[in-house]
Amino acid sequence: MAAASAEDTTATFRRVYETLKADLLRDTSVNFNEDAVQWLDGMLDYNVLGGKFNRGLAVIESYKLLKAGSEPSEEEVFLACILGWGIEWLQAYFLVLDDIMDNSRTRRGKPCWYRLPKVGLFAINDGLVLRSQISQIFKRYFYGKTYYVDLLDLFNEIEFKTTSGELLDLITTNEGREDLSKYTLEVYQRIVEYKTAYYSFYLPVACALLLSGWSLGDYVKVKHILVEMGVYFQIQDDYLDCFGDPEVMGKIGTDIEDFKCSWLFVQALERIDEKRKDILFENYGKSDAACVAKVKDLYKELNLESVFSEYETEIYEKMISDIDTQPNEALQAVLKSFLHKIYRRRK
Amino acid sequence: MAAASAEDTTATFRRVYETLKADLLRDTSVNFNEDAVQWLDGMLDYNVLGGKFNRGLAVIESYKLLKAGSEPSEEEVFLACILGWGIEWLQAYFLVLDDIMDNSRTRRGKPCWYRLPKVGLFAINDGLVLRSQISQIFKRYFYGKTYYVDLLDLFNEIEFKTTSGELLDLITTNEGREDLSKYTLEVYQRIVEYKTAYYSFYLPVACALLLSGWSLGDYVKVKHILVEMGVYFQIQDDYLDCFGDPEVMGKIGTDIEDFKCSWLFVQALERIDEKRKDILFENYGKSDAACVAKVKDLYKELNLESVFSEYETEIYEKMISDIDTQPNEALQAVLKSFLHKIYRRRK
Repeated sequence: MAAASAEDTTATFRRVYETLKADLLRDTSVNFNEDAVQWLDGMLDYNVLGGKFNRGLAVIESYKLLKAGSEPSEEEVFLACILGWGIEWLQAYFLVLDDIMDNSRTRRGKPCWYRLPKVGLFAINDGLVLRSQISQIFKRYFYGKTYYVDLLDLFNEIEFKTTSGELLDLITTNEGREDLSKYTLEVYQRIVEYKTAYYSFYLPVACALLLSGWSLGDYVKVKHILVEMGVYFQIQDDYLDCFGDPEVMGKIGTDIEDFKCSWLFVQALERIDEKRKDILFENYGKSDAACVAKVKDLYKELNLESVFSEYETEIYEKMISDIDTQPNEALQAVLKSFLHKIYRRRK
Repeated sequence: MAAASAEDTTATFRRVYETLKADLLRDTSVNFNEDAVQWLDGMLDYNVLGGKFNRGLAVIESYKLLKAGSEPSEEEVFLACILGWGIEWLQAYFLVLDDIMDNSRTRRGKPCWYRLPKVGLFAINDGLVLRSQISQIFKRYFYGKTYYVDLLDLFNEIEFKTTSGELLDLITTNEGREDLSKYTLEVYQRIVEYKTAYYSFYLPVACALLLSGWSLGDYVKVKHILVEMGVYFQIQDDYLDCFGDPEVMGKIGTDIEDFKCSWLFVQALERIDEKRKDILFENYGKSDAACVAKVKDLYKELNLESVFSEYETEIYEKMISDIDTQPNEALQAVLKSFLHKIYRRRK
């Protein structure tokens, strides 16, 4: 039997969204009026859709790899899709609220939700609604499964890690505005781990493991590998923000202008002499193009391009060797599939 | 043995807060730096404390009544306190975020958290942190208990109801600005039930039931009674906002100025003739004192004071008779204790 193509998977995944949305709109425990149904309908489409569904689709893909050749049933695929949507909903919740905090303008090529005149700060409650819908969805489809409580715990843990990471980021960036020497590699590592890596890399695989009936407590090493991969992913992001090709990426980076605690900046700090440090500090966080250019020049002088390239080679080798110590081959395949999707990415 | 006094209970409750806060600040799963610890410390004290802890203390009180005379152990009281703080944390989460949406100025006699210059929209993430801390607290103290999953489900359900109620309220108030005839008794009832009654009245008792090892599914009627009591409480609030004594209440109501879908307004709409309806609509939602006075005059002309007084007598009698149909006497005592705390309150 031929494996389902990526397009098939995306189409199935997309269909499940319609089911979940319909469940929520006609939820009998709240009995929304017509105006509320319309609002929710539009709010979900605007915020949950529109991305590439990388995290959500990764659940299905990982689940299939874990089954190691035996074709999953329709029901199993359906449940994997629901867990994938759980992550997409979680992501939507974070993005809707982060965009307000960051005063962002666009998201996924459209104005941010809160920027729409009819929405404004109502977006805050929409964020909370998105969060609370995840539990509703899980209750409907997973209540009574042996892993139900582990699933709730998992999402709760990841939510705690992510909001804690955002807190560290906010505090650090605030302090960075006063004193850029607060941006250290250790601080950077911690922010990225909590804020991004857990929910983007560990969570999809953890969902697939639960669905396969495996116990998360037995896979602590897998968690570490995935979190490390998530950090690597963010470092690539930071690198591409400055050195990537805007044509290929479809966007222009603004980390320097935005005072970001970026991997490039912390690497520069580790290598720079006092004199050039003053220049770096004077020009960082300014929207003036000449200032941005000076920062980029310093990055180049410090050879950060090759520092990144060496990091990338080393981390790749380290990860492959870590993955190879995993006794389970199907799990190795999952981890390698993740790694190969991001290794040397240019966008 | 003498029953613990209310002061003892509050002091015990307050001590448990310090334990929970200390747990969260030195959480080893995130390993916060000193700046983050300080931030969290101040954020929790500012937002979780400062209220009267009515909801939290109600868990302990209900639990004691459910034990019907047998003194709870120290451990049992400790767990009841933790559940009580879970509700106080949930309340803090809602209030921090609601205040931003409502553009509020003060809360519990202090500036709203987001109004502090160092906080601003960081308050949004602080709200999410508060939410995610509840799960952390529960995991630490209730993991492995038979009712652990029911506890998570309960808080998830109440969160869903409350955010859905807030959504209905936002949509309704928005429409009300265009067309005040959208404010109907049915709409009012639904908003209040979801937005306030579940988390303020049902949740404390549900927590006490779980802790006593009772199954929530067996107490659907109790849920209805408590939700109805919550609606009654909000109706009192709406009444007092206009007709209460500001000296006694310690605050001056602004529901008329704020375009609120208030019980008084919907009652007025049910009774008013077309001519006076125009006057009501023209003057509602304006901060001008003369407009507010006109609305109040209309309320008086329509005898809303006696409408309220009759409602209060009727609902009280209905509730007492509903409560008396409950087979369990301890549970009757819990419900009556709630009712007598609010009946004919003047603040």
